[in-house]
Amino acid sequence: MKNYYDDPIFFEKYSQMGRSVHGLAGAGEWESLQKMLPDFRGKSVLDLGCGYGWHCLYAAEQGASRVLGIDLSEKMLEVAQKKAENAEAKVISYQCMAMEEYEYPTDTFDVVISSLALHYVADLPEVYRKVYHALRAGGDFIFSVEHPIFTAYGNQDWIYDETGKILHWPVDHYFREGSREAVFLGETVTKQHRTLTGWIQPLLEAGFQIRQLCEPQPPEHMMELPGMKDELRRPMMLLISAKK
Amino acid sequence: MKNYYDDPIFFEKYSQMGRSVHGLAGAGEWESLQKMLPDFRGKSVLDLGCGYGWHCLYAAEQGASRVLGIDLSEKMLEVAQKKAENAEAKVISYQCMAMEEYEYPTDTFDVVISSLALHYVADLPEVYRKVYHALRAGGDFIFSVEHPIFTAYGNQDWIYDETGKILHWPVDHYFREGSREAVFLGETVTKQHRTLTGWIQPLLEAGFQIRQLCEPQPPEHMMELPGMKDELRRPMMLLISAKK
Repeated sequence: MKNYYDDPIFFEKYSQMGRSVHGLAGAGEWESLQKMLPDFRGKSVLDLGCGYGWHCLYAAEQGASRVLGIDLSEKMLEVAQKKAENAEAKVISYQCMAMEEYEYPTDTFDVVISSLALHYVADLPEVYRKVYHALRAGGDFIFSVEHPIFTAYGNQDWIYDETGKILHWPVDHYFREGSREAVFLGETVTKQHRTLTGWIQPLLEAGFQIRQLCEPQPPEHMMELPGMKDELRRPMMLLISAKK
Repeated sequence: MKNYYDDPIFFEKYSQMGRSVHGLAGAGEWESLQKMLPDFRGKSVLDLGCGYGWHCLYAAEQGASRVLGIDLSEKMLEVAQKKAENAEAKVISYQCMAMEEYEYPTDTFDVVISSLALHYVADLPEVYRKVYHALRAGGDFIFSVEHPIFTAYGNQDWIYDETGKILHWPVDHYFREGSREAVFLGETVTKQHRTLTGWIQPLLEAGFQIRQLCEPQPPEHMMELPGMKDELRRPMMLLISAKK
């Protein structure tokens, strides 16, 4: 993927988002994702596309014995490093690289997590295979990605009437998998659209067993935030928990 | 569900559809579904919502030792009975009832199949549990249903421009699961919309392991039929293979 997050303007805008300022509590899907996470005590954890390291910190706070966060963005990892200066976070280390380039060790991690990063990956089956290889038997792979309904059309926006009112969410060229360009924080960002089949079938073929699948809805206490009720009109994310 | 198929006008129209006249070969998803089916030789098979009995016949032709087809429509089962008069089909029996009312025996079937019928069921988790109960250990449950993208909006139609050209497929009130009314063959038909989570999660909770998931695309040789290329613009069906 292109490294948008090291672009100064993009970085500045991203750092002002709710999920950047408030961390996990500012992410609408966190309550759903949290329920899918295993007990981290004594576990060795890998976070693919860790960004600011919120999930790494959480794993450390929950008792993980070792946490490795990987991200393409130096700037995000700088912030992550600063956050990781307390005692609990001593178990965390960060490496700046693409998850496709990381040399996955054999049967090493108990848990691999990835939050909203895999939809940037062009060769997903290859990453699935590498994660499988790096997990110990019985290990967990939990990830969130943008939902195929959200990514299919391309521009990631509603259809509006002439008064600006939302009519519905458009789906088109669903079975044409591959790059889609959407404007995010004023930057044209390229993500990979996959069908649901494209997300699930290679995961099964890599050897994983699916344990849970969840399309998160915003929690009740966030429902009064602007635009949040519209999040019930189409799914934005897909959360999957799989086991080696 | 309401028994539309015994309505004379609806029945007449349905009997003229490609999948009614040509059977499995006339169904766009058949090639995908066929690949997901197990070896039927010597197997005991249950078909939920068997309709004209095409899948029952196929299982019998492939060597199933016993096939039970269940359907709500007497008229469809009459046609199914007539088709089942040759030697191979001696292993087939039919029962006219709703799949919710069938008394599922314990650990009896090797394979349970269901083609485009489960989206009429109001209490899906209950049917999943009954199917699990009726399958032998290691048994297969393979089914096709209408896709959540197809059912969410409700009327099951495209959005067109003023010239009648298709613009895109609409998605709305995705997270409101439950009844949707769509016009099919001139009749208002009520189906149940479920999120993807609503299809998958109760299946996992019933104890099933997901083996394959497929959103079928029309086969190459059908691509020149009118409207068939538009089938690549949004998924219509979801095919799942699960194991007890």
